This record gives sequence, structure tokens and C-alpha cells, in this order.
Amino acid sequence: MTIEGTTASTGPNRRLRLGMVGGGRGAFIGGVHRIAARLDDRYELVAGALSSDPERAKASGADLFLASERCYASFAEMAQAEAARDDRIDVVSVVTPNHRHHDAAKAFLEAGIHVICDKPLTTSVEDAEDLAATVERTALIFVLTHNYTGYPMIRQARAMVEAGELGRIRVVQVEYPQDWLTTRLEATGQKQAEWRTDPARSGIAGCVGDIGTHAFQLAEFVTGLRCTQVAADLTTFVEGRPLDDNAHMLLRYDNGARGMLWASQVAPGNENGLRLRVYGDKGGLEWFQEQPNALRFAPFGEPPRTITRGGPGSNPAAGHATRIPSGHPEGYLEGFAQIYRDAADLIVARLGGPQPDPQAALVPGVRDGVRGVRFIHAAVESSRRGASWVEI
Amino acid sequence: MTIEGTTASTGPNRRLRLGMVGGGRGAFIGGVHRIAARLDDRYELVAGALSSDPERAKASGADLFLASERCYASFAEMAQAEAARDDRIDVVSVVTPNHRHHDAAKAFLEAGIHVICDKPLTTSVEDAEDLAATVERTALIFVLTHNYTGYPMIRQARAMVEAGELGRIRVVQVEYPQDWLTTRLEATGQKQAEWRTDPARSGIAGCVGDIGTHAFQLAEFVTGLRCTQVAADLTTFVEGRPLDDNAHMLLRYDNGARGMLWASQVAPGNENGLRLRVYGDKGGLEWFQEQPNALRFAPFGEPPRTITRGGPGSNPAAGHATRIPSGHPEGYLEGFAQIYRDAADLIVARLGGPQPDPQAALVPGVRDGVRGVRFIHAAVESSRRGASWVEI
Amino acid sequence: MTIEGTTASTGPNRRLRLGMVGGGRGAFIGGVHRIAARLDDRYELVAGALSSDPERAKASGADLFLASERCYASFAEMAQAEAARDDRIDVVSVVTPNHRHHDAAKAFLEAGIHVICDKPLTTSVEDAEDLAATVERTALIFVLTHNYTGYPMIRQARAMVEAGELGRIRVVQVEYPQDWLTTRLEATGQKQAEWRTDPARSGIAGCVGDIGTHAFQLAEFVTGLRCTQVAADLTTFVEGRPLDDNAHMLLRYDNGARGMLWASQVAPGNENGLRLRVYGDKGGLEWFQEQPNALRFAPFGEPPRTITRGGPGSNPAAGHATRIPSGHPEGYLEGFAQIYRDAADLIVARLGGPQPDPQAALVPGVRDGVRGVRFIHAAVESSRRGASWVEI
Amino acid sequence: MTIEGTTASTGPNRRLRLGMVGGGRGAFIGGVHRIAARLDDRYELVAGALSSDPERAKASGADLFLASERCYASFAEMAQAEAARDDRIDVVSVVTPNHRHHDAAKAFLEAGIHVICDKPLTTSVEDAEDLAATVERTALIFVLTHNYTGYPMIRQARAMVEAGELGRIRVVQVEYPQDWLTTRLEATGQKQAEWRTDPARSGIAGCVGDIGTHAFQLAEFVTGLRCTQVAADLTTFVEGRPLDDNAHMLLRYDNGARGMLWASQVAPGNENGLRLRVYGDKGGLEWFQEQPNALRFAPFGEPPRTITRGGPGSNPAAGHATRIPSGHPEGYLEGFAQIYRDAADLIVARLGGPQPDPQAALVPGVRDGVRGVRFIHAAVESSRRGASWVEI
Repeated sequence: MTIEGTTASTGPNRRLRLGMVGGGRGAFIGGVHRIAARLDDRYELVAGALSSDPERAKASGADLFLASERCYASFAEMAQAEAARDDRIDVVSVVTPNHRHHDAAKAFLEAGIHVICDKPLTTSVEDAEDLAATVERTALIFVLTHNYTGYPMIRQARAMVEAGELGRIRVVQVEYPQDWLTTRLEATGQKQAEWRTDPARSGIAGCVGDIGTHAFQLAEFVTGLRCTQVAADLTTFVEGRPLDDNAHMLLRYDNGARGMLWASQVAPGNENGLRLRVYGDKGGLEWFQEQPNALRFAPFGEPPRTITRGGPGSNPAAGHATRIPSGHPEGYLEGFAQIYRDAADLIVARLGGPQPDPQAALVPGVRDGVRGVRFIHAAVESSRRGASWVEI
Repeated sequence: MTIEGTTASTGPNRRLRLGMVGGGRGAFIGGVHRIAARLDDRYELVAGALSSDPERAKASGADLFLASERCYASFAEMAQAEAARDDRIDVVSVVTPNHRHHDAAKAFLEAGIHVICDKPLTTSVEDAEDLAATVERTALIFVLTHNYTGYPMIRQARAMVEAGELGRIRVVQVEYPQDWLTTRLEATGQKQAEWRTDPARSGIAGCVGDIGTHAFQLAEFVTGLRCTQVAADLTTFVEGRPLDDNAHMLLRYDNGARGMLWASQVAPGNENGLRLRVYGDKGGLEWFQEQPNALRFAPFGEPPRTITRGGPGSNPAAGHATRIPSGHPEGYLEGFAQIYRDAADLIVARLGGPQPDPQAALVPGVRDGVRGVRFIHAAVESSRRGASWVEI
Repeated sequence: MTIEGTTASTGPNRRLRLGMVGGGRGAFIGGVHRIAARLDDRYELVAGALSSDPERAKASGADLFLASERCYASFAEMAQAEAARDDRIDVVSVVTPNHRHHDAAKAFLEAGIHVICDKPLTTSVEDAEDLAATVERTALIFVLTHNYTGYPMIRQARAMVEAGELGRIRVVQVEYPQDWLTTRLEATGQKQAEWRTDPARSGIAGCVGDIGTHAFQLAEFVTGLRCTQVAADLTTFVEGRPLDDNAHMLLRYDNGARGMLWASQVAPGNENGLRLRVYGDKGGLEWFQEQPNALRFAPFGEPPRTITRGGPGSNPAAGHATRIPSGHPEGYLEGFAQIYRDAADLIVARLGGPQPDPQAALVPGVRDGVRGVRFIHAAVESSRRGASWVEI
Repeated sequence: MTIEGTTASTGPNRRLRLGMVGGGRGAFIGGVHRIAARLDDRYELVAGALSSDPERAKASGADLFLASERCYASFAEMAQAEAARDDRIDVVSVVTPNHRHHDAAKAFLEAGIHVICDKPLTTSVEDAEDLAATVERTALIFVLTHNYTGYPMIRQARAMVEAGELGRIRVVQVEYPQDWLTTRLEATGQKQAEWRTDPARSGIAGCVGDIGTHAFQLAEFVTGLRCTQVAADLTTFVEGRPLDDNAHMLLRYDNGARGMLWASQVAPGNENGLRLRVYGDKGGLEWFQEQPNALRFAPFGEPPRTITRGGPGSNPAAGHATRIPSGHPEGYLEGFAQIYRDAADLIVARLGGPQPDPQAALVPGVRDGVRGVRFIHAAVESSRRGASWVEI
């Protein structure tokens, strides 16, 4: 447990200089990224292409105390200009809608700048592969904000599975129900609903891309298994919506385990109900995002126990990802911040700082992004073919 | 709410005479049926073919204070002998393993005796249809102990759906995880495990037949929908076990709703985790068998509320199926007893008593049994065909 | 775990003959006692003085299939007449309002008949002591239906404390909130509210006597400690009500442990919220009546675990008090029935049957009743003296 | 809901300059204050007297990127030096052990600098009154970090009570159990345990001062009532510990409501279990710190509902204190940050910025601190006098 991540010994004795693409006034997730970046005091935001509208870009920059010459009108201009500065940004956060991730991220990678990028990685498999190739060619750090992997009890769960505490994994149940699209919210002008239900900005999937990818990735992250096949039944329940708003899937994993994935945005009474349950031949684990500080562990034949962040039975992997003692709940922002903290460790190492804790290397990267895009496309393809099995 | 079901006005002013087939020493579910029959004081047990072993049959009968001349060595003898008595049994409970349900139930129906029968109805679709035809021909009461439909909050849920409080149903999530077969328990001589994993006594399915049918039936009971298609991925995780111990299914309902069904007997940390969640365009309902006195109801756009048995917001359908005030938990035995209480109302009406409450007519009958057997066979067929869709 | 309590070897091979005083039409708790008596098939109800109104007494008896000559007009007549019969009742249940407990119970004891009596024992300390002396002089079985001690997980908790799993007990938190008297319900003619708020029938305390005694007794039952002193602040919040409807108390126990007791009938949102928490120097236990099948056990320095009735970690004391496997919830009626089952074991032993399981001897008896009455009087006295400490 | 608190229109278009007294290497709560200050981007830390050990003070400052000339060796030096600078700090956070709060806070107030101070305010009533007088004389902002009042659902609860949704408040149950001092942890050198159990640094109370004050203050904050009398039974269960580690109290409020307060640091299985329950004649509210995003509201006679931060039924008071949508849990750090955000609003107004939202004015101030100190002393006095009632 560390309250703050920086000490005199961790490499360049300064905060990392951060830029941001997207996230101007009226955006949601950009603000979350900024809180996450500030929380552990490892970054200072110094540059941005915060909006494609130049006026809004400048005003948004002023809100955030950016120097006006570092408020850019486009990511292309920003990548070029920053690359030319002595005090150029160390890393950029790409927080635009999905359809711009590829081009923006690529521009900074080509300029030699590390990237933190929102998920899903891209809207097409081709773009995803191209970005992965670019990352691999440039050998830069690329972090994908599958933020739920930053929760301490998810790190705990992963380490427990890896240590064999569940035995051989047999069954994976993952679900992510929400209710905010139960009605046709996008028709009211609600911004978040608009772009997420618009194929031009979201890609070929709605609910599957927006939250199904989180569920899919979380299950693989915790179990260490690879999902090889999916049989999916996607549905659009709200009339006039061009993309799926409910997804039912059967999953098969590389070790023979079987799974189910449910993602929905039309399930009244569910706010952000990401839930993962994993069962092996020695025990079971259950975790619920809305109460993230607890993990239920049932060793077969023994009473189930509740392991809390920092409480008895919590492991170093959980400890790596937390700040405050047990009983003082951490939440979504702290989980998100963990991704930024780990990214900082990786980047600082590149700048000559110490080798990061191996836990830091667990942050999702570009290959996770490629898998996510492949998952989306496999799910859509399976559903089109009547829920036939499709390889991922 | 009624503490006891009998009043001077309800028809024949006596307890119904009950017989039992199966349920001798060492059996489990027979004792549950007897408690259920006693709880509301509507029956007295007077005859039995409690075991196929004559010694055990007699000793079991003595335990239960049966007159020795009414402890029979076989159901066939019992049906014949009882039919010939003036004080013959009004109704028989069939609580044998699955493979004997058909023959035993049929024998009593042919003898003019009403039947209460454990689920699943039979081990083959042909037997199921034959039994249904027999019931319809004889016009006798036939009750199938899908006991979870006896829970007050399940009656509440059904009435709420019927009244339109959820709007049009879109999504049905039902699951029934257990963990007692995580290891090869049947190899240790445990009696319950032995017959449930033995195709000769259980039929073509293990987990699907034992508990999957409950989940399937409960979802239809509450929603009033018919499931038309299933795509199933059945697995046997424990080596050497001849029947499935985990089942993953996609469901399609007649109104366009989609569902998922998970049944497992290898999910450590789950005891008897039957859970039903139903979502419509106006609201959602959630219920969990291990805490059966509460129902979560989330009208879309309003805070979710917890409706308890007998508490504010509970409806007459729940009231029909309860005995004691809110806050005093009723459980599995009371739910089971409700099936017997409702059955008594139906039988008493046939004996000249008053017309039963319409709620009593909701007890599952032979056609529910046929559907259950068809469901089992469709699931197995689908799984054999790689989780292709199969009509039910 | 036993489904039914009677076997050929348990003494008189018959059901015990039960009589009842009180519990006629319109009463509540009498019906609960009868279900409890039937559940394990150890009793048959054969006689009653069910109401002080002769017409109602007769009609109530007919509802229950009693022979008309054993429907008595008064408990005095019943005690005398039954004592004279060859097939006289073995035991009587006294289920009248509090003010009649003493006289009725005494009449049967003097007639040589065992007694099961509702709580609180009497309305005065003198009556309580007199009844205790009578029980001790006659050496008959006297069982007080502090029914919450019949819950399996309460038996489990008691055995765990006794085995030292919590170490030395330091802190006891017990509470029993309800909300049904939030408004002046007694003014509407509601029968249960009427007598409970009437000093003539309830005695000197309202909430304290009705539910506070349960809380007090449960804490002593589980911890094995004796409460020596109470400082109480009783309040009547509803205008016009002559007895307390909320009670706040500090407790001191004989080993130096400290406690708090809260009983309330004016706490909206609480149905029957009896909750006990016990903390020692080695661990803590928490139990909640509305979810009675689980017990939370936190050994200090280890993750808290959930022990369920019949699940891993449950002990023989719990096993003694249950009927069905884990995951199949038992509730209030089963807990109540346990008191009757244990009473049957004690009575059968007197009739020449086998010695009962030592667990059976844990059922509350007349001395628990005396303590309860002393507790009520001490609480009222303390409150009158401004919450000064009063010895119990 | 606002992601970040600063916009061009909110007064001085810059972050507030923050200093800190205490909170150097090895300290805990200082780091929490710094995260809280950073989270909403309203402050930059620019000066500190982080440790009374000069070497540690300097090293700690370097960790935090402070300019070395603003790393002071004492708060006195810091107050004087900062007051003399043009770019002097706007506000100082005092995060030392309790016994230094008074002197440090007073020094900055006298230097004309606003103060944010940890609780409890001081170790004596005299110091508390003196500090209050100083604040009132200087008319500076003084914020006391009773951080639990920063939780959105606490703001929601307060507003609901104020709006009359509970009717007249009758009963207040507040408790704060922990288990970390179950053994004599202070003897192992654990720093947090050492000073909290040391009268020289903690004052006359242990558990009461450390966490009892939070419970006491939270109950008053939510109900708007004043507690007038306390009867307390304080205990030290761990041998050799000079201060109380368990506290049981009866409370009386100015409107006639009654309450109970339990604070404990020896209750195994409890981490940071602050729980508040409030009951009025129209409804009840329940809140639990370890799951802070939900509030249970039971209007009498209606089903209880769960109101979540940002979900249906949440009010503007909750909205004022949150950053992200419902279902994305906020926790302890966000609640703490709310105190800093509100403090920033108050200070910015003094610097010529806009008037703050009335909600901001709810942050606890020096008079809350005085009440807390009076409460501690009344509790100790009451306990010394055998739990007699003592006026607060």
C-alpha cells in the first residue's frame, strides 16, 4: 500500500508530462482520465487537443490551466509540435470516441510518444492489427484503459488463480448489465447515448463493444485463459436503434473451461453491474464491481470467506493496487488511477528509472486491444449466423 | 395469510388420506413431502409402498405409524388394494427416483386416485406424453412438485408480470448453481449422488434434469412466456461421470424475449443458488432462492425496492402462499407445503368442497411435466449438435 | 439432520398427546405452535381450552378435528378432566396473553401434566418465582418458547462460544427492531396490537416484554454469560400509548463483558430485525434472524467466513436442529418446531424412552422465564430512575 | 455532478496554494489529505512543515516536489515565513497528532491563513474554545475534516431529513466498530496504534476520540438535532492500554429523540464499520460506510428502497458531492476530497470568486470541533460516574 507513488528514488525526479486528445468540455471520460492521472501525483497535464472544435479546444485548455500555446486544434498538429519541444510530453492519453483511436494513437507513436488509450482499441480488426504492429515496431509503451483490471481485488483474484487456489478452472460466468438504454435515450440528445449507438462512431457493435469487451477482457485477465470460441445471440430491443443493446454468449476456453457472458444496457435496476464468477475444481471466486472492495472465495468443502482489500488474506497483488487501509472503500476512480500509476512505472523505467514492480506490467496493452476487437467481430459474426460458434 | 388451511366450511370436514410410493428409510425427498403434507394439516398419511425391499417397507411404515396392513410391498399392490377400500387414500405421492414415476403414477391414476408426483415427470418424452394422456383421460388431479413455484415471492413475481408491472418482457436470466458434485461423490456411495448420476435411474441428463428443469420451469412460471428454442452446451467436468454436471444455454421465448440458463453442480461456494432475474421495458425483478422472502423490484427510472413476504407492496398472490407475518422467514419446507396445500384445495373441490382460490390452480401439473421432459431432451440434442438451436 | 424425529426405538411408539390453552379462532401464535408441533410429527393435538368464549372454543376445536368432549370451556376444567383420563394429554401448550400464563401453567403442573408455555413467563416476578417453585416441586418438564433458540445457527453459535472459538467474550450487541407500532395501531382494533399495548394483559412493559426479552435471552443463551446489571432508557414515542415502544439499554455481564440492547417497535423499515453480534478476544460472530441460515464468523486476523446451516464448518449442534440440506432455507416455523422437537425428546425420556441428545436439554425452561421477568422489571425500574444501573 | 471543480468563472483562475503541517514520510493521514486536495484539481501543494525532524521534513518535501526553501522545520517558522511571501499559501492543512492541532492551527490563523484541520479539534475543551474564538475573531475559513460528511449519500440523507421525509426523528442508532486494536498492537511499534493509545498525544480518550467523535458528529450532521446528554460506559478490554477501546452510550437529543452510540476497536470482523440508522415517525434511513454509494430509505408502510449515488431518487445534495455516474463506486478518498472541494469553494469566495453553493457551507467547522471535544469529555466524565447522564 502506498499513498503516493513517487519517491526520490524512482527515476526522473519529476512528474510525467501528459497530453490529452479528446476530453474537452462536455466530455465524460476525459475528466475521469485526468482524475486518475492526478490521484497518485505521477503526472502533470501540460498539453491537449481537447476538441476538434478550436474554440472549445482553447476554452477547455484554459479550464485545465494549460498554456495556450499547448492547446492544439488537432492531434496531428499536437503530435508534431510536441515532438519538437525539449519539454515535450512523455505520454498522451487518447480519450476520443472509438473511431478516432487508431489515427490519434498512431500519430503519437510515430512521433515517439508513449500512449494511453481508451477501449475498445479500434473499430476494425485491420486497424487494431495495424496499431499493434506500430506499437511493436516503435517499442513504445501502449496502455489500454481496461480500467476494471486496476481494482485491487481483481489483482488479488488473478494472483489466486495463478497460484492454483481454484485448481483447474472449469466454469466462467461473467456479466455486465446496465439499464441506462432501456428507452431510446439517444433520441433525446444525450451525448453519451448518441455516439455509443451510432455505428459511425462506435463501430459494428453497441453493447458488445461498449461493455461486453470489458467483461470479456476481465474474465481472461483473472483466469489467465484464452477464449477460443464464442456463440452469440445479440439483440436490439429498443426500436430504431441500429446496434445491439443486449448480448447473450456461450464461451469456450483453451483449457476446456466453459463460460457465459451477458452484457445488457436494457436491464432495469442494474447500474454498472459487472460481475465475475470463476469456478475451478478446488474453489470458486466471486466479485461484483459495485462493491469492489470485497472478494468472495469459497475453497471447496470449507466455508466461503470474504477477503477485503487490505484485510486478512489479501495478497501482495492487491496491496500493489491500493492506497488506504481496509474498510475505507476505494472505488472506480482509484481503480482507474491504478492503470495510470502502473503506466507511470513502465514509462519511468524507459526514462532511466527503476524497473517496475512486475504487477505494473499487468496493465492491458495493445494486444489486449486486438483481442477485444476480434471478440467484437466474432460475436457479431456468430450472431449473424444464428449463434453458431465462431473462432476468436 | 392463513395459519391453517382447514375450516369447517372447506368441503369434507376431514384431513385428506394420503399414500406414498417411495420415501422409505434412507430416502431424502420423501420426508420432505411428508413434512409438506403435515404442515398445513390438510393430510394424514395412511398408506405406503415405501420401499421396494419388503422389510424396509414395513419398518419404514412403522416409523410413520402406518397400520401394518397398509404397508405395501409394491405400488401395484398398493394401487389395487387401496382402490378396493372404503377408506381408500384420496391421493398418492410418488417420490421414487425418476425412472419409476411413470409406472407408479399411471397405476394410481388408473385406479382412480389423484397423484402428486416428483419432478422430472419421466425419463422419456414418450412416457411423459403417455402420462399426460392418462391424466387427461381420467380427469384426475395431477400435481408436479416444482416446489419453487410454492414460494410466496414467486407467486408475487408472477402476478406482477401478469399485471404488466414489468411491461413487455425482454430478457430472462435464470441460473441454478450448486457445488455438491464438484468431486466424484457418487464413487463414495452417497445415495443421492449415485442415482442422480446414473442414466438408468436419472435418464439422459444429469444436472439438466435434476435442477435445470426447475430453472426452466420457474422462468416460464413467472414470465408466463413459452420458451421455444434452446441452444445448449452441456459439459461433464468430473471424470468418469456419465451425465452432464454443467449446462450453459441460450433461450428464445415466444414473444421475442431472450434468455440464458445456467445450471451447475460443480460451482464451489454455491449451495442451492436458484436465481431468477426478469427484465421488461418498464422494470426488472430479481429473486434468489436462498433468501426467498424478498423480491427486488426496480421500476425503470425509480429506486429499486425490496418487497418482502407480507410486507408493504406484497400482493394477494403472495398472501395466498404464506402463513406468518413479514420478518418471520418462511423457507423451503413452507414453499413445498404450499404445493400440498394447493393440491388439497383442488382435491377437496373434487370431493364436493368449495371451489379453490384461483391461485391454487397455479400448481404445476402434468403438462408442465411434459414440457420439462421435452426441455431436457432438447437441451441434450442441442448440445450433441454443437449448441445448435433446437425447438422445444 | 433428521427429517422426522420418531423412530421405533424412541420410547413410547406413538405421537405425544398434546393439549392447548388459548389459540382459538383469530389468535395468531396458537397456530404457530400447532404447526411447530406437527412439523416433526411428534405430537397429535387432542384437547383444548381454545378460547374463554365457549362457542368460540367449540368452533375452534372443530376446525382442528378435536373430539367435542375434549373441547373445554376453561383451562381449569381441562386440567381436571384430562388428568382423569387414561388417554390423557402428555403435555399442554399455554398460548394465551401473558397475564394468564401463570394460572394456566400452574393448573396443569398441579395435575401432573408437562407444560410448554409462551414467553414472557408471567407478568410479575412473584408469579414467576411461584411457577418456578411449582415446576421444581413437581419435577415436570416445563419448556418456554423462546423460539429463536431453536434456530440451527443459534445452536451453532452457542457451541462455538462454548468451545472457545471466540476466546473471552468482551462485547455483546443485541437488537430487535420492528416497525409495526410506528403509528397507534392499537386504536384501529388490531388484536395483536391491542393486547400488547395494554398493561392489564401485557404487564408493566410493552416493547421490552414482547421482544426485549427475546433479545436478552438470546444473548445469554449464545454467550453462556449472565447479565448482572442493566441501565435502561425506555420511551413511549406514540402518543396515548401506556407502555414503552422503544428501549435503549446498557448491559454488564458477569465476566466483565459489556453489552447494548436495543428493542423498538417504531423503527420504520424493520420487520423482525433480531440481530446478535458477539465479540471475544479471538473472534466475532454475527447473526440476523431474517436470514437465519447463515452465521458470520470472523476469527481475528483471518478473513470472515459465512457458515451456513448444514454447509462446511457447521457443527453437530446445528445439525441437531435441522431437517434439510444446506441451501434449502429453513425459517421461523422450523426454529419454533425445534423447541417442540426438543421438548418431545425430554418428555419421551420421562415416559421411559431413551435419554435425549444433550442438545435437547438446551430448550429454555422456567428459570429462563424467571430471568426474563426479572429483566423486564429491572429495565423498567432502571428507566424510572433515569437509566441508573439496576441489578437483575 | 462535476468532474472537475475549476472553471474560468470561479474566481481566481488558478489552483489554491496549499501548505501542510505534519504528514511527512511514515505518516498516514497526510497522504490522504494530499490525494483529497489533488483529486478535484483545486489545490497545489507548495509548502510544508512535514515533520518535526528537520531531515525528515526536507526529504518528505522532496518526495512531494516542494521547493526546498518552502520545506520548513516547524509550523511556527512556516506560518511566519509564508505570511511574508507574495505567493504565500492560501490555506494550510494541519494533519499532526491531536495534541498539536491547537497550536499549529492558531499560528496560521494569526498569520491570516485559512485552515483545514484534522479531527478531533484539540485535546482539551479550553483549547477548543480558544481556537473557536480565534477563528471567530479572525473571520477566516476553518474546516474540520469530519470526512464522512463528504459522502454523497450522507448529503442526500441530511437533505431528506431536512425536507421532512422521515417526519419527526425519534431514534438514532449510530455505531463505529473496528477490530484493529483487538490485541495490544501498540506494543509492537505500530505507529498508528502508538499515538492513538497514548494519552499524551491522543488526549483523555482513545476509541471515543478517534472514532466515537465521527459517529457522534455524523448523527448530528444528518439529523440536524443536537445531542444534549450522554450516559456512557467506556471500557478498556486490552490489558495495559491506558485509554478506552470500547464505548457504549445512551444519547438524548434536543427534540426528545433517543439514541445509542457504539464505538469499538476490539470487535473482530469489523474493519471500519461506521453505520448510521435514523428513524422518524414517517420513515427510516440506513447507511453503511463500507458500502457508501447506497442509502436505504423505508417510508413507513411502503417497501424500502435503495437510493444510489446518482441513481433514481438521488437529490441535488448528493449530486453536489459526486463526480461520476451511478454504479461507478466512489469511496473514502472521494468523500475526503469533497471536504477539500467544498473548502476550496469557500476560500475562493473570500478571494473574490463567486458565492459557493450552499452545500459547500455544510463542511464541518470549528464549532463542530468544539462540540466533538465537549462530547469526548462528557463521555469520559459520564463513564467515571458510572454511566450517569452528563450534559454536553
